[in-house]
Amino acid sequence: MSALSVNAARLWSDHMRMAEIGPSPEGGSNRPALSALDAEARALLTAWCFALGLTEERDALANTFYRRAGSAALPAVAFGSHLDTVPTGGRFDGVSGVLAGLEVIRVLAEAGITTKAPLELVNWTNEEGTRFRPAMMGSRVHAGDMTLAEALSVRDDDGISVAQALAAHNLAGPAAPAPRRWAAFLELHIEQGAILESTGQDIGIVTGTVQARYFQITVTGTPSHAGPMSMDRRRDSLAAAAEVILASERVGIAGEPGGRSSTTWITNSPNARGAVANITRLHSDVRHEDPARAAEMQTDFLGAVAEIATRRQLRIDVDPYTTFGPVRFDAKIANTLRTAAQARQMTTRDMLAVAGHDAVMAARVCPAAMLFVPSVGGISHNPGEYSTPEQLAKGAQVLLDAVVALSA
Amino acid sequence: MSALSVNAARLWSDHMRMAEIGPSPEGGSNRPALSALDAEARALLTAWCFALGLTEERDALANTFYRRAGSAALPAVAFGSHLDTVPTGGRFDGVSGVLAGLEVIRVLAEAGITTKAPLELVNWTNEEGTRFRPAMMGSRVHAGDMTLAEALSVRDDDGISVAQALAAHNLAGPAAPAPRRWAAFLELHIEQGAILESTGQDIGIVTGTVQARYFQITVTGTPSHAGPMSMDRRRDSLAAAAEVILASERVGIAGEPGGRSSTTWITNSPNARGAVANITRLHSDVRHEDPARAAEMQTDFLGAVAEIATRRQLRIDVDPYTTFGPVRFDAKIANTLRTAAQARQMTTRDMLAVAGHDAVMAARVCPAAMLFVPSVGGISHNPGEYSTPEQLAKGAQVLLDAVVALSA
Repeated sequence: MSALSVNAARLWSDHMRMAEIGPSPEGGSNRPALSALDAEARALLTAWCFALGLTEERDALANTFYRRAGSAALPAVAFGSHLDTVPTGGRFDGVSGVLAGLEVIRVLAEAGITTKAPLELVNWTNEEGTRFRPAMMGSRVHAGDMTLAEALSVRDDDGISVAQALAAHNLAGPAAPAPRRWAAFLELHIEQGAILESTGQDIGIVTGTVQARYFQITVTGTPSHAGPMSMDRRRDSLAAAAEVILASERVGIAGEPGGRSSTTWITNSPNARGAVANITRLHSDVRHEDPARAAEMQTDFLGAVAEIATRRQLRIDVDPYTTFGPVRFDAKIANTLRTAAQARQMTTRDMLAVAGHDAVMAARVCPAAMLFVPSVGGISHNPGEYSTPEQLAKGAQVLLDAVVALSA
Repeated sequence: MSALSVNAARLWSDHMRMAEIGPSPEGGSNRPALSALDAEARALLTAWCFALGLTEERDALANTFYRRAGSAALPAVAFGSHLDTVPTGGRFDGVSGVLAGLEVIRVLAEAGITTKAPLELVNWTNEEGTRFRPAMMGSRVHAGDMTLAEALSVRDDDGISVAQALAAHNLAGPAAPAPRRWAAFLELHIEQGAILESTGQDIGIVTGTVQARYFQITVTGTPSHAGPMSMDRRRDSLAAAAEVILASERVGIAGEPGGRSSTTWITNSPNARGAVANITRLHSDVRHEDPARAAEMQTDFLGAVAEIATRRQLRIDVDPYTTFGPVRFDAKIANTLRTAAQARQMTTRDMLAVAGHDAVMAARVCPAAMLFVPSVGGISHNPGEYSTPEQLAKGAQVLLDAVVALSA
């Protein structure tokens, strides 16, 4: 345990200042990846880092690395998260990981301490994947899970490519994203669930992730007139899709507490008031901490979908296009986090991440770990997302102590 | 019964020629209202009508009236339908009513007959209402159910107004749409259902319309993350909307044979793969030939919606924004149609229209009636929409005989 203490008021103030960029009417944040607002948020972070004497390096996807020199020629200890948000985002998802990392460096700078290993504060590009798919794009390309060329050519719903968005705000650096040979990557994140709150524990030590399985679903019915066509002769793709949505929900409920299942995305054609729909597309997922149970949930879901197609005499194509996890984080670094928390008399709980995070990608190329701070009400991707100044400070303190331990 | 006979081969050939304008890959028609294709279809009809010596008059919404002079100063006998289609349209919906009217005039011209009353063949603008809402726009404004200014300012999904679309193709005439003091308006239309086919009858005498009640529905849940948020704490607007869709379907099934209910339109927000939806909008309707039963269906539907909102602890707002019908067509003209059919040894069936038609609007300002020809398989708003040359010819023959009787 170091003698250093984070400044809770400063950490909170940094959050509130960052939330001034892209505020949503309901009090959250709406800062799409690679938008003008994202560029403004990045510029603020850069100004803060330059004031601390850090150097800045960006790669060709605008993943940004703020480096503080160490006293020895060692691999860097890295930490950070992301500044982009979903459209209905809050002020903490991602942001808290970046600003906790900034606070770590502020404390070290104030104390005049130079660590042996260099430090790198990281802001990953497009973690959310809402504007440009897939999620964790920057850390994904960095980890070699997607090529730079693929990422640059992804287009948003307005047809703007990642390359164009980068150029519009002059965000790209020269070098292709590539592993930076870190000694460790640590990410603080809000829990986005309510487990820590319900158990009253201070810090979640994230030991890995659930397994998630993603499905793109196309229901193909028969176009017909919404008036004259008798009900029994319709092949209504929207009504069939409604059953698929509810089947996905049932599978998620049956899979709890370790499982979840959601249908979040829909398009419908012709989507005209007088016409029975004939093509409806959905995006669903199932997630479970036990990969075997995730596979069972997939089987249950696909069985329900097949039954719907048979009974309704229409076609439902399911593309199980990708899976994610399970990932196991580095046990030694997780233990460093756990020890740091316990040395401060904080209670901890080992838990799994149910969502993707940049640390999951970083874990492919270096030892990585995560810690969660509680989310009030478990609310996330919502303007009402909230963690208290004290909760955030506790998490930043654990991050600080772990970074000091790893870089000493 | 006149001694005149329609030319089935010519009527069919006119259909196939018209279907060359805006063919869909699946063999149907995709001719949006006031598009370049609609303009091309109108130009073809005008060329055919000019070749028959008719005069053309357009109003400010491009409702088009092709007039054949009569021998007496009497109100005109009018007939027609529309040339626009839904995106997944067939080759007969609307088109058959216009081309049957054209065939009536072709036969009279060939026979050298001048009726006492003038005749007007009508092509109404934007019956479908897919590109520009509402449906039956041209006949609606003509009947005074909507102002010209309102109609001209309606915009399609690309932001193009009716006024701009009219100007783009130079389609508008000078005068505001206004009732033309017709002695009668007759509309031949395909049934778009399968009743005539299943009973083997030749001609449907449409005595009126069902009552339809339309609902714009907004489900408001709570945004949350599709991973961590536990199932029971979600307020998933898409899952709730799925239940609303199925409730609407159940109400339609319970309302048969006289009733229908459909949900055809949906939007979802944020419609992002990682986020539980929080705002989902639907468009639903209930229809029944008995207005009292339509009211009961509405009660059943809204009761189900309220139960869903209560059980799921989220908000569902229902705007029952409009109703339609019941309309009763002119019994004397319907009888003229029935008598004409029976004189040709055709079997008839009195029936109600379950969809809106231009004749419904015309009935507000003059005596009006409709006849249906069978739809093979009841298929409509679908590229597979089909009526045989014989079925179309029988309908056109009844229209011819009725027009002769009414204009003699």
